[in-house]
Amino acid sequence: MLAALLDGTVISPQQSAIHIDDRGLLYGDGVFETMSLQNGKLRFLNDHLRRMQHGCKRLGIVMPDTELLINELQQLTHNADRGIVKLIITRGRGGRGYRASQCVATRLMQLFEPVELVTGLTVRWCATRLARNEALAGIKHLNRLEQVLAQSEWDDATINEGLMLDTEGELISGTMSNVFMVVDDVLVTPDLRFSGVQGVMRGNILHTAVELSITVEQRAVHPEELLSATEVFMTNAVRGIQPVVALLPSSIAGRQWDIGALTMKLMDNLAQEH
Amino acid sequence: MLAALLDGTVISPQQSAIHIDDRGLLYGDGVFETMSLQNGKLRFLNDHLRRMQHGCKRLGIVMPDTELLINELQQLTHNADRGIVKLIITRGRGGRGYRASQCVATRLMQLFEPVELVTGLTVRWCATRLARNEALAGIKHLNRLEQVLAQSEWDDATINEGLMLDTEGELISGTMSNVFMVVDDVLVTPDLRFSGVQGVMRGNILHTAVELSITVEQRAVHPEELLSATEVFMTNAVRGIQPVVALLPSSIAGRQWDIGALTMKLMDNLAQEH
Repeated sequence: MLAALLDGTVISPQQSAIHIDDRGLLYGDGVFETMSLQNGKLRFLNDHLRRMQHGCKRLGIVMPDTELLINELQQLTHNADRGIVKLIITRGRGGRGYRASQCVATRLMQLFEPVELVTGLTVRWCATRLARNEALAGIKHLNRLEQVLAQSEWDDATINEGLMLDTEGELISGTMSNVFMVVDDVLVTPDLRFSGVQGVMRGNILHTAVELSITVEQRAVHPEELLSATEVFMTNAVRGIQPVVALLPSSIAGRQWDIGALTMKLMDNLAQEH
Repeated sequence: MLAALLDGTVISPQQSAIHIDDRGLLYGDGVFETMSLQNGKLRFLNDHLRRMQHGCKRLGIVMPDTELLINELQQLTHNADRGIVKLIITRGRGGRGYRASQCVATRLMQLFEPVELVTGLTVRWCATRLARNEALAGIKHLNRLEQVLAQSEWDDATINEGLMLDTEGELISGTMSNVFMVVDDVLVTPDLRFSGVQGVMRGNILHTAVELSITVEQRAVHPEELLSATEVFMTNAVRGIQPVVALLPSSIAGRQWDIGALTMKLMDNLAQEH
Protein backbone atom coordinates (compact mmCIF):
# COMPACT_ATOMS: atom_id res chain seq x y z
CA MET A 1 0.00 0.00 0.00
CA LEU A 2 1.34 3.45 -0.92
CA ALA A 3 -0.99 5.79 0.92
CA ALA A 4 -4.23 5.82 2.86
CA LEU A 5 -6.93 8.23 3.97
CA LEU A 6 -9.42 7.43 6.73
CA ASP A 7 -12.41 9.70 7.26
CA GLY A 8 -10.52 12.50 5.57
CA THR A 9 -7.28 12.11 7.51
CA VAL A 10 -4.04 10.97 5.93
CA ILE A 11 -2.77 7.90 7.76
CA SER A 12 0.24 5.68 7.34
CA PRO A 13 -0.50 2.52 5.35
CA GLN A 14 0.85 0.57 8.32
CA GLN A 15 -1.42 2.28 10.80
CA SER A 16 -3.91 0.61 13.09
CA ALA A 17 -6.71 3.07 12.68
CA ILE A 18 -10.03 1.23 12.48
CA HIS A 19 -12.19 1.27 15.59
CA ILE A 20 -12.72 -2.11 17.19
CA ASP A 21 -16.48 -1.62 16.95
CA ASP A 22 -16.58 -0.80 13.25
CA ARG A 23 -19.35 -2.82 11.64
CA GLY A 24 -17.19 -3.43 8.60
CA LEU A 25 -15.01 -5.61 10.83
CA LEU A 26 -17.83 -7.06 12.92
CA TYR A 27 -20.19 -8.13 10.12
CA GLY A 28 -18.66 -7.22 6.76
CA ASP A 29 -21.29 -4.48 6.88
CA GLY A 30 -20.17 -2.26 4.04
CA VAL A 31 -19.31 -1.93 0.35
CA PHE A 32 -16.18 -1.29 -1.66
CA GLU A 33 -14.87 -0.20 -5.04
CA THR A 34 -11.54 -0.96 -6.67
CA MET A 35 -10.55 1.65 -9.23
CA SER A 36 -7.80 2.15 -11.77
CA LEU A 37 -5.72 5.31 -11.56
CA GLN A 38 -4.33 6.17 -15.02
CA ASN A 39 -2.58 9.42 -15.96
CA GLY A 40 -3.56 10.79 -12.59
CA LYS A 41 -7.26 10.15 -13.16
CA LEU A 42 -9.59 7.59 -11.65
CA ARG A 43 -11.13 5.72 -14.54
CA PHE A 44 -14.90 5.25 -14.49
CA LEU A 45 -15.08 7.17 -11.22
CA ASN A 46 -18.72 8.14 -11.74
CA ASP A 47 -19.71 4.57 -12.53
CA HIS A 48 -17.95 3.36 -9.38
CA LEU A 49 -19.65 5.95 -7.21
CA ARG A 50 -23.02 5.19 -8.79
CA ARG A 51 -22.67 1.48 -8.06
CA MET A 52 -21.55 2.23 -4.51
CA GLN A 53 -24.55 4.47 -4.02
CA HIS A 54 -26.82 1.73 -5.29
CA GLY A 55 -25.19 -0.82 -2.97
CA CYS A 56 -25.47 1.49 0.04
CA LYS A 57 -29.13 2.12 -0.73
CA ARG A 58 -29.92 -1.58 -0.91
CA LEU A 59 -28.11 -2.22 2.38
CA GLY A 60 -29.57 0.85 4.09
CA ILE A 61 -26.16 2.43 4.60
CA VAL A 62 -26.06 6.23 4.58
CA MET A 63 -23.48 6.90 1.88
CA PRO A 64 -21.22 9.90 2.47
CA ASP A 65 -21.62 12.87 0.18
CA THR A 66 -20.22 12.15 -3.28
CA GLU A 67 -18.43 15.52 -3.49
CA LEU A 68 -16.68 14.75 -0.23
CA LEU A 69 -15.57 11.36 -1.50
CA ILE A 70 -14.29 12.84 -4.76
CA ASN A 71 -12.31 15.50 -2.88
CA GLU A 72 -10.79 12.93 -0.58
CA LEU A 73 -9.94 10.63 -3.49
CA GLN A 74 -8.15 13.55 -5.12
CA GLN A 75 -6.26 14.18 -1.90
CA LEU A 76 -5.24 10.51 -1.79
CA THR A 77 -4.03 10.40 -5.39
CA HIS A 78 -2.75 13.93 -6.04
CA ASN A 79 0.89 12.86 -6.25
CA ALA A 80 0.28 9.64 -8.13
CA ASP A 81 0.04 8.95 -11.83
CA ARG A 82 -0.81 5.27 -11.93
CA GLY A 83 -2.07 2.80 -9.36
CA ILE A 84 -5.09 1.11 -7.87
CA VAL A 85 -7.42 2.83 -5.46
CA LYS A 86 -9.62 0.91 -3.10
CA LEU A 87 -12.53 2.77 -1.51
CA ILE A 88 -14.32 1.10 1.40
CA ILE A 89 -17.48 2.46 2.98
CA THR A 90 -18.70 0.69 6.10
CA ARG A 91 -21.96 1.38 7.90
CA GLY A 92 -19.83 2.83 10.72
CA ARG A 93 -19.41 2.09 14.38
CA GLY A 94 -21.99 0.33 16.46
CA GLY A 95 -22.59 -1.56 19.65
CA ARG A 96 -22.86 -5.32 20.02
CA GLY A 97 -25.58 -6.92 17.93
CA TYR A 98 -26.63 -7.01 14.30
CA ARG A 99 -29.06 -4.11 14.61
CA ALA A 100 -27.67 -0.89 13.16
CA SER A 101 -28.76 2.43 14.54
CA GLN A 102 -27.83 5.93 13.47
CA CYS A 103 -24.39 5.02 12.24
CA VAL A 104 -22.07 7.45 10.51
CA ALA A 105 -20.36 5.65 7.64
CA THR A 106 -16.62 5.03 7.80
CA ARG A 107 -14.72 5.95 4.62
CA LEU A 108 -11.38 4.31 3.99
CA MET A 109 -9.32 4.94 0.86
CA GLN A 110 -6.14 3.09 -0.01
CA LEU A 111 -3.70 3.61 -2.87
CA PHE A 112 -1.76 0.62 -4.19
CA GLU A 113 0.88 0.02 -6.85
CA PRO A 114 -0.52 -0.77 -10.31
CA VAL A 115 -0.97 -4.46 -11.20
CA GLU A 116 0.87 -6.14 -14.02
CA LEU A 117 -1.59 -7.04 -16.71
CA VAL A 118 -1.72 -10.44 -18.35
CA THR A 119 -2.98 -10.46 -21.94
CA GLY A 120 -4.16 -14.04 -22.35
CA LEU A 121 -5.67 -15.63 -19.26
CA THR A 122 -5.45 -19.24 -18.22
CA VAL A 123 -8.47 -20.08 -16.09
CA ARG A 124 -9.67 -23.01 -14.01
CA TRP A 125 -12.93 -24.13 -12.41
CA CYS A 126 -13.43 -23.44 -8.72
CA ALA A 127 -15.11 -25.99 -6.47
CA THR A 128 -16.37 -23.22 -4.16
CA ARG A 129 -19.87 -22.20 -5.17
CA LEU A 130 -21.61 -18.84 -4.97
CA ALA A 131 -24.75 -18.82 -2.83
CA ARG A 132 -27.96 -17.39 -4.26
CA ASN A 133 -29.52 -14.46 -2.50
CA GLU A 134 -31.41 -11.78 -4.39
CA ALA A 135 -31.00 -9.42 -1.42
CA LEU A 136 -27.24 -9.34 -1.90
CA ALA A 137 -26.81 -10.20 -5.59
CA GLY A 138 -24.91 -7.64 -7.65
CA ILE A 139 -23.66 -5.61 -4.68
CA LYS A 140 -19.91 -5.26 -4.15
CA HIS A 141 -20.27 -5.75 -0.39
CA LEU A 142 -17.72 -6.78 2.20
CA ASN A 143 -19.06 -10.33 2.71
CA ARG A 144 -16.51 -11.99 0.49
CA LEU A 145 -15.68 -15.34 2.09
CA GLU A 146 -16.79 -17.22 -1.03
CA GLN A 147 -14.18 -15.41 -3.11
CA VAL A 148 -11.55 -15.93 -0.42
CA LEU A 149 -12.26 -19.67 -0.34
CA ALA A 150 -12.32 -19.91 -4.13
CA GLN A 151 -8.92 -18.23 -4.49
CA SER A 152 -7.46 -20.51 -1.85
CA GLU A 153 -8.16 -23.49 -4.10
CA TRP A 154 -5.00 -23.07 -6.18
CA ASP A 155 -1.55 -21.56 -5.83
CA ASP A 156 -0.16 -22.20 -9.28
CA ALA A 157 0.87 -18.73 -10.50
CA THR A 158 0.31 -19.72 -14.13
CA ILE A 159 -3.44 -19.86 -13.43
CA ASN A 160 -4.77 -16.33 -13.62
CA GLU A 161 -8.38 -16.65 -12.57
CA GLY A 162 -10.98 -19.14 -11.36
CA LEU A 163 -14.47 -19.53 -12.77
CA MET A 164 -17.28 -19.86 -10.24
CA LEU A 165 -20.66 -21.57 -10.48
CA ASP A 166 -23.56 -20.84 -8.18
CA THR A 167 -25.08 -23.50 -5.94
CA GLU A 168 -27.48 -24.47 -8.78
CA GLY A 169 -24.57 -25.12 -11.13
CA GLU A 170 -24.89 -22.03 -13.32
CA LEU A 171 -21.77 -20.14 -14.40
CA ILE A 172 -21.71 -16.73 -12.70
CA SER A 173 -18.28 -15.08 -12.85
CA GLY A 174 -14.62 -15.27 -12.00
CA THR A 175 -13.44 -14.81 -8.42
CA MET A 176 -12.61 -11.16 -9.14
CA SER A 177 -14.02 -10.53 -12.60
CA ASN A 178 -17.09 -10.95 -14.76
CA VAL A 179 -17.14 -13.34 -17.71
CA PHE A 180 -18.31 -12.88 -21.30
CA MET A 181 -18.39 -15.35 -24.16
CA VAL A 182 -19.32 -15.33 -27.82
CA VAL A 183 -21.79 -18.07 -28.77
CA ASP A 184 -23.16 -18.11 -32.33
CA ASP A 185 -21.99 -14.53 -32.82
CA VAL A 186 -23.95 -13.37 -29.78
CA LEU A 187 -22.15 -11.83 -26.81
CA VAL A 188 -23.36 -13.66 -23.71
CA THR A 189 -22.77 -12.90 -20.05
CA PRO A 190 -24.43 -14.49 -17.02
CA ASP A 191 -27.30 -12.54 -15.55
CA LEU A 192 -26.61 -11.73 -11.92
CA ARG A 193 -30.07 -11.92 -10.40
CA PHE A 194 -29.07 -14.37 -7.67
CA SER A 195 -25.35 -13.86 -7.12
CA GLY A 196 -22.22 -12.21 -8.44
CA VAL A 197 -21.10 -8.60 -8.60
CA GLN A 198 -22.40 -6.08 -11.16
CA GLY A 199 -18.97 -5.09 -12.41
CA VAL A 200 -18.33 -1.54 -13.57
CA MET A 201 -16.41 -2.88 -16.59
CA ARG A 202 -19.22 -5.33 -17.27
CA GLY A 203 -21.68 -2.44 -17.35
CA ASN A 204 -19.39 -0.52 -19.65
CA ILE A 205 -19.19 -3.43 -22.09
CA LEU A 206 -22.94 -3.96 -22.10
CA HIS A 207 -23.34 -0.32 -23.12
CA THR A 208 -20.56 -0.46 -25.69
CA ALA A 209 -22.07 -3.57 -27.25
CA VAL A 210 -25.33 -1.73 -27.82
CA GLU A 211 -23.46 1.22 -29.36
CA LEU A 212 -21.51 -1.10 -31.66
CA SER A 213 -24.69 -3.01 -32.65
CA ILE A 214 -23.40 -6.22 -31.09
CA THR A 215 -26.20 -8.54 -30.00
CA VAL A 216 -25.80 -9.13 -26.28
CA GLU A 217 -27.64 -11.45 -23.91
CA GLN A 218 -27.66 -11.45 -20.12
CA ARG A 219 -29.03 -14.84 -19.18
CA ALA A 220 -28.48 -18.02 -17.20
CA VAL A 221 -25.34 -19.72 -18.54
CA HIS A 222 -24.54 -23.40 -18.23
CA PRO A 223 -20.81 -24.00 -17.68
CA GLU A 224 -20.58 -26.40 -20.64
CA GLU A 225 -21.59 -23.58 -22.97
CA LEU A 226 -18.07 -22.28 -22.53
CA LEU A 227 -16.82 -25.21 -24.60
CA SER A 228 -18.84 -24.15 -27.61
CA ALA A 229 -17.99 -20.46 -27.23
CA THR A 230 -15.76 -19.08 -29.98
CA GLU A 231 -14.36 -16.32 -27.73
CA VAL A 232 -14.19 -15.88 -23.97
CA PHE A 233 -12.99 -12.90 -21.97
CA MET A 234 -13.01 -11.68 -18.38
CA THR A 235 -13.58 -8.11 -17.26
CA ASN A 236 -12.75 -6.06 -14.20
CA ALA A 237 -12.41 -2.32 -13.64
CA VAL A 238 -8.69 -2.50 -12.93
CA ARG A 239 -7.71 -5.04 -15.57
CA GLY A 240 -10.14 -4.06 -18.30
CA ILE A 241 -10.93 -6.75 -20.88
CA GLN A 242 -8.75 -9.85 -20.68
CA PRO A 243 -9.13 -12.59 -23.30
CA VAL A 244 -9.17 -16.13 -21.98
CA VAL A 245 -6.80 -18.35 -23.98
CA ALA A 246 -6.97 -21.55 -21.97
CA LEU A 247 -9.46 -23.33 -19.74
CA LEU A 248 -7.91 -26.14 -17.73
CA PRO A 249 -9.84 -29.40 -17.79
CA SER A 250 -11.64 -30.68 -14.68
CA SER A 251 -14.88 -32.68 -14.66
CA ILE A 252 -15.64 -30.44 -17.64
CA ALA A 253 -13.29 -30.72 -20.62
CA GLY A 254 -10.60 -28.11 -21.13
CA ARG A 255 -10.26 -25.82 -24.13
CA GLN A 256 -8.04 -23.26 -25.79
CA TRP A 257 -8.99 -20.12 -27.67
CA ASP A 258 -7.34 -17.55 -29.87
CA ILE A 259 -8.11 -13.92 -29.17
CA GLY A 260 -11.21 -13.37 -31.30
CA ALA A 261 -12.39 -10.50 -33.49
CA LEU A 262 -15.20 -9.37 -31.22
CA THR A 263 -12.95 -9.37 -28.15
CA MET A 264 -10.36 -7.29 -30.03
CA LYS A 265 -13.02 -4.87 -31.22
CA LEU A 266 -14.19 -4.30 -27.63
CA MET A 267 -10.59 -3.97 -26.39
CA ASP A 268 -9.84 -1.39 -29.07
CA ASN A 269 -12.95 0.52 -28.19
CA LEU A 270 -12.03 0.52 -24.51
CA ALA A 271 -8.51 1.78 -25.32
CA GLN A 272 -9.98 4.63 -27.36
CA GLU A 273 -12.39 5.66 -24.62
CA HIS A 274 -9.33 6.50 -22.63
CA MET B 1 -18.19 -1.95 25.78
CA LEU B 2 -16.42 -2.31 29.12
CA ALA B 3 -12.99 -3.56 28.14
CA ALA B 4 -11.05 -4.88 25.20
CA LEU B 5 -7.92 -6.85 24.44
CA LEU B 6 -6.30 -6.92 21.01
CA ASP B 7 -3.56 -9.44 20.26
CA GLY B 8 -2.88 -9.68 23.98
CA THR B 9 -2.73 -5.95 24.66
CA VAL B 10 -5.30 -4.13 26.76
CA ILE B 11 -6.84 -1.33 24.73
CA SER B 12 -9.49 1.26 25.42
CA PRO B 13 -12.94 0.24 24.16
CA GLN B 14 -12.95 3.53 22.20
CA GLN B 15 -9.63 2.84 20.56
CA SER B 16 -8.97 2.72 16.85
CA ALA B 17 -6.68 -0.25 16.85
CA ILE B 18 -7.44 -2.46 13.87
CA HIS B 19 -5.04 -2.26 10.95
CA ILE B 20 -6.56 -0.91 7.77
CA ASP B 21 -5.45 -4.04 5.93
CA ASP B 22 -7.03 -6.53 8.33
CA ARG B 23 -8.91 -9.12 6.31
CA GLY B 24 -11.70 -9.14 8.84
CA LEU B 25 -12.53 -5.63 7.67
CA LEU B 26 -11.73 -6.20 3.99
CA TYR B 27 -13.69 -9.42 3.43
CA GLY B 28 -15.37 -10.47 6.67
CA ASP B 29 -12.58 -13.05 6.66
CA GLY B 30 -12.86 -14.44 10.18
CA VAL B 31 -15.02 -16.06 12.84
CA PHE B 32 -16.45 -15.02 16.17
CA GLU B 33 -17.96 -16.30 19.41
CA THR B 34 -20.29 -14.54 21.82
CA MET B 35 -20.06 -15.95 25.32
CA SER B 36 -21.82 -15.47 28.61
CA LEU B 37 -19.76 -14.51 31.66
CA GLN B 38 -21.50 -15.70 34.82
CA ASN B 39 -19.99 -15.70 38.32
CA GLY B 40 -16.69 -14.77 36.77
CA LYS B 41 -16.66 -17.79 34.47
CA LEU B 42 -17.19 -18.07 30.73
CA ARG B 43 -20.00 -20.53 30.23
CA PHE B 44 -19.45 -23.27 27.65
CA LEU B 45 -15.98 -21.91 26.94
CA ASN B 46 -14.71 -25.23 25.64
CA ASP B 47 -17.69 -25.60 23.32
CA HIS B 48 -17.13 -22.10 21.97
CA LEU B 49 -13.45 -22.72 21.36
CA ARG B 50 -14.21 -26.05 19.73
CA ARG B 51 -16.69 -24.47 17.34
CA MET B 52 -14.25 -21.67 16.57
CA GLN B 53 -11.53 -24.21 15.85
CA HIS B 54 -13.86 -26.07 13.52
CA GLY B 55 -14.80 -22.82 11.74
CA CYS B 56 -11.16 -21.78 11.35
CA LYS B 57 -10.31 -25.18 9.96
CA ARG B 58 -13.05 -25.02 7.34
CA LEU B 59 -11.99 -21.52 6.30
CA GLY B 60 -8.28 -22.34 6.35
CA ILE B 61 -7.55 -19.81 9.08
CA VAL B 62 -4.67 -20.67 11.41
CA MET B 63 -6.38 -20.46 14.79
CA PRO B 64 -4.26 -19.08 17.63
CA ASP B 65 -3.26 -21.47 20.38
CA THR B 66 -6.21 -22.30 22.63
CA GLU B 67 -4.18 -21.86 25.83
CA LEU B 68 -3.19 -18.38 24.70
CA LEU B 69 -6.82 -17.49 24.01
CA ILE B 70 -7.94 -18.81 27.39
CA ASN B 71 -5.23 -16.81 29.18
CA GLU B 72 -6.18 -13.65 27.33
CA LEU B 73 -9.87 -14.18 28.00
CA GLN B 74 -9.03 -14.50 31.71
CA GLN B 75 -7.05 -11.28 31.50
CA LEU B 76 -10.03 -9.55 29.86
CA THR B 77 -12.55 -10.75 32.43
CA HIS B 78 -10.53 -11.01 35.66
CA ASN B 79 -12.32 -8.08 37.32
CA ALA B 80 -15.77 -8.90 36.00
CA ASP B 81 -18.47 -11.13 37.44
CA ARG B 82 -21.13 -10.95 34.75
CA GLY B 83 -21.21 -9.80 31.17
CA ILE B 84 -20.90 -10.82 27.56
CA VAL B 85 -17.61 -11.57 25.90
CA LYS B 86 -17.14 -11.39 22.18
CA LEU B 87 -14.10 -13.11 20.71
CA ILE B 88 -13.21 -12.34 17.10
CA ILE B 89 -10.50 -14.13 15.16
CA THR B 90 -9.70 -12.78 11.71
CA ARG B 91 -7.33 -14.37 9.22
CA GLY B 92 -5.02 -11.43 9.87
CA ARG B 93 -3.49 -8.72 7.75
CA GLY B 94 -2.97 -9.02 4.04
CA GLY B 95 -2.36 -7.13 0.85
CA ARG B 96 -4.96 -6.22 -1.75
CA GLY B 97 -6.82 -9.18 -3.23
CA TYR B 98 -8.82 -12.12 -1.98
CA ARG B 99 -5.87 -14.48 -1.87
CA ALA B 100 -4.59 -15.06 1.65
CA SER B 101 -0.96 -15.87 2.24
CA GLN B 102 0.85 -16.62 5.46
CA CYS B 103 -1.39 -14.52 7.64
CA VAL B 104 -1.10 -14.36 11.40
CA ALA B 105 -4.59 -14.33 12.87
CA THR B 106 -5.83 -11.22 14.66
CA ARG B 107 -7.48 -11.88 18.04
CA LEU B 108 -9.88 -9.31 19.40
CA MET B 109 -11.76 -9.75 22.67
CA GLN B 110 -14.42 -7.41 23.93
CA LEU B 111 -16.31 -7.37 27.24
CA PHE B 112 -19.83 -5.94 27.30
CA GLU B 113 -22.51 -5.37 29.95
CA PRO B 114 -24.85 -8.33 30.47
CA VAL B 115 -28.11 -8.32 28.47
CA GLU B 116 -31.52 -8.19 30.09
CA LEU B 117 -33.25 -11.49 29.48
CA VAL B 118 -36.82 -11.73 28.23
CA THR B 119 -38.70 -14.84 29.39
CA GLY B 120 -41.39 -15.14 26.74
CA LEU B 121 -40.42 -14.06 23.26
CA THR B 122 -42.61 -12.41 20.68
CA VAL B 123 -41.28 -13.26 17.23
CA ARG B 124 -41.97 -12.24 13.65
CA TRP B 125 -41.14 -13.51 10.18
CA CYS B 126 -38.28 -11.84 8.32
CA ALA B 127 -38.49 -11.17 4.60
CA THR B 128 -34.70 -11.41 4.27
CA ARG B 129 -33.71 -14.96 3.32
CA LEU B 130 -30.62 -16.97 4.19
CA ALA B 131 -28.60 -18.10 1.17
CA ARG B 132 -27.62 -21.74 0.86
CA ASN B 133 -23.95 -22.59 0.73
CA GLU B 134 -22.61 -25.81 2.21
CA ALA B 135 -19.10 -24.29 2.27
CA LEU B 136 -20.19 -21.71 4.85
CA ALA B 137 -23.17 -23.39 6.55
CA GLY B 138 -22.90 -23.77 10.30
CA ILE B 139 -19.85 -21.53 10.71
CA LYS B 140 -20.13 -18.42 12.88
CA HIS B 141 -18.17 -16.34 10.38
CA LEU B 142 -17.98 -12.58 9.92
CA ASN B 143 -20.09 -12.46 6.72
CA ARG B 144 -23.28 -11.43 8.45
CA LEU B 145 -25.06 -9.05 6.09
CA GLU B 146 -28.12 -11.31 5.95
CA GLN B 147 -28.59 -10.98 9.71
CA VAL B 148 -27.98 -7.23 9.55
CA LEU B 149 -30.63 -6.84 6.84
CA ALA B 150 -33.08 -9.09 8.68
CA GLN B 151 -32.78 -7.11 11.92
CA SER B 152 -33.28 -3.86 10.03
CA GLU B 153 -36.76 -5.04 9.01
CA TRP B 154 -38.40 -3.98 12.27
CA ASP B 155 -37.83 -1.47 15.05
CA ASP B 156 -40.72 -2.31 17.33
CA ALA B 157 -39.02 -3.08 20.66
CA THR B 158 -41.85 -5.45 21.67
CA ILE B 159 -40.66 -7.86 18.97
CA ASN B 160 -37.77 -9.84 20.39
CA GLU B 161 -36.56 -11.89 17.47
CA GLY B 162 -37.15 -12.57 13.78
CA LEU B 163 -37.47 -15.99 12.19
CA MET B 164 -35.56 -16.57 8.98
CA LEU B 165 -36.23 -18.88 6.05
CA ASP B 166 -33.63 -19.90 3.52
CA THR B 167 -33.97 -19.09 -0.17
CA GLU B 168 -35.85 -22.38 -0.69
CA GLY B 169 -38.44 -21.43 1.91
CA GLU B 170 -37.31 -23.69 4.73
CA LEU B 171 -37.25 -22.42 8.31
CA ILE B 172 -33.62 -22.16 9.48
CA SER B 173 -33.24 -20.02 12.60
CA GLY B 174 -33.72 -16.66 14.24
CA THR B 175 -31.49 -13.73 13.33
CA MET B 176 -29.32 -14.40 16.39
CA SER B 177 -30.59 -17.70 17.75
CA ASN B 178 -31.51 -21.23 16.80
CA VAL B 179 -35.09 -22.46 16.91
CA PHE B 180 -36.62 -25.62 18.39
CA MET B 181 -40.23 -26.80 18.39
CA VAL B 182 -42.20 -29.70 19.78
CA VAL B 183 -44.29 -31.50 17.15
CA ASP B 184 -46.16 -34.68 18.19
CA ASP B 185 -43.98 -34.92 21.30
CA VAL B 186 -40.82 -34.88 19.20
CA LEU B 187 -38.26 -32.10 19.64
CA VAL B 188 -37.52 -30.72 16.16
CA THR B 189 -34.87 -28.27 15.04
CA PRO B 190 -33.87 -27.35 11.47
CA ASP B 191 -30.85 -29.13 10.12
CA LEU B 192 -28.20 -26.63 9.12
CA ARG B 193 -26.64 -28.32 6.12
CA PHE B 194 -27.10 -25.34 3.81
CA SER B 195 -27.23 -22.28 6.04
CA GLY B 196 -27.49 -21.08 9.62
CA VAL B 197 -25.07 -21.20 12.53
CA GLN B 198 -24.40 -24.32 14.60
CA GLY B 199 -25.17 -22.68 17.92
CA VAL B 200 -23.31 -23.73 21.04
CA MET B 201 -26.58 -23.74 23.01
CA ARG B 202 -28.23 -25.70 20.20
CA GLY B 203 -25.50 -28.33 20.50
CA ASN B 204 -25.93 -28.41 24.25
CA ILE B 205 -29.67 -29.02 23.92
CA LEU B 206 -29.22 -31.77 21.35
CA HIS B 207 -26.93 -33.55 23.82
CA THR B 208 -29.23 -32.92 26.77
CA ALA B 209 -32.21 -34.27 24.84
CA VAL B 210 -30.39 -37.54 24.28
CA GLU B 211 -29.48 -37.75 27.98
CA LEU B 212 -33.08 -37.08 29.00
CA SER B 213 -34.41 -39.63 26.47
CA ILE B 214 -36.24 -36.95 24.50
CA THR B 215 -36.71 -37.89 20.85
CA VAL B 216 -35.02 -35.22 18.77
CA GLU B 217 -34.97 -34.67 15.02
CA GLN B 218 -32.68 -32.41 12.99
CA ARG B 219 -34.38 -32.08 9.66
CA ALA B 220 -35.77 -29.72 7.03
CA VAL B 221 -38.59 -27.71 8.62
CA HIS B 222 -41.40 -26.04 6.73
CA PRO B 223 -42.41 -22.71 8.32
CA GLU B 224 -46.08 -23.72 8.59
CA GLU B 225 -45.06 -26.56 10.91
CA LEU B 226 -44.62 -23.93 13.56
CA LEU B 227 -48.40 -23.49 13.68
CA SER B 228 -48.94 -27.11 14.68
CA ALA B 229 -46.07 -27.10 17.20
CA THR B 230 -47.17 -27.36 20.82
CA GLU B 231 -44.04 -25.61 22.11
CA VAL B 232 -41.48 -23.34 20.49
CA PHE B 233 -38.28 -21.95 21.92
CA MET B 234 -35.19 -20.11 20.72
CA THR B 235 -31.65 -20.73 21.92
CA ASN B 236 -28.43 -18.75 22.04
CA ALA B 237 -25.32 -19.05 24.17
CA VAL B 238 -25.88 -15.74 25.94
CA ARG B 239 -29.64 -15.96 26.40
CA GLY B 240 -29.96 -19.69 26.99
CA ILE B 241 -33.39 -21.18 26.25
CA GLN B 242 -36.14 -18.64 25.61
CA PRO B 243 -39.73 -19.85 25.14
CA VAL B 244 -41.64 -18.24 22.28
CA VAL B 245 -45.08 -17.10 23.46
CA ALA B 246 -46.28 -15.26 20.38
CA LEU B 247 -45.73 -15.41 16.64
CA LEU B 248 -47.03 -12.36 14.81
CA PRO B 249 -49.13 -13.09 11.74
CA SER B 250 -47.82 -12.32 8.23
CA SER B 251 -48.59 -14.32 5.09
CA ILE B 252 -48.50 -17.21 7.55
CA ALA B 253 -51.05 -17.11 10.38
CA GLY B 254 -49.96 -15.97 13.83
CA ARG B 255 -50.10 -18.06 17.01
CA GLN B 256 -49.64 -17.95 20.74
CA TRP B 257 -48.16 -20.56 23.05
CA ASP B 258 -47.87 -21.23 26.74
CA ILE B 259 -44.50 -22.28 28.06
CA GLY B 260 -44.65 -26.05 27.67
CA ALA B 261 -43.49 -28.94 29.82
CA LEU B 262 -40.61 -30.00 27.61
CA THR B 263 -39.29 -26.45 27.33
CA MET B 264 -39.42 -26.10 31.13
CA LYS B 265 -37.66 -29.41 31.60
CA LEU B 266 -34.82 -28.30 29.34
CA MET B 267 -34.63 -24.88 31.03
CA ASP B 268 -34.44 -26.52 34.46
CA ASN B 269 -31.75 -28.85 33.27
CA LEU B 270 -29.75 -25.93 31.86
CA ALA B 271 -30.08 -24.01 35.14
CA GLN B 272 -28.77 -27.03 37.06
CA GLU B 273 -25.80 -27.49 34.74
CA HIS B 274 -24.65 -24.18 36.01
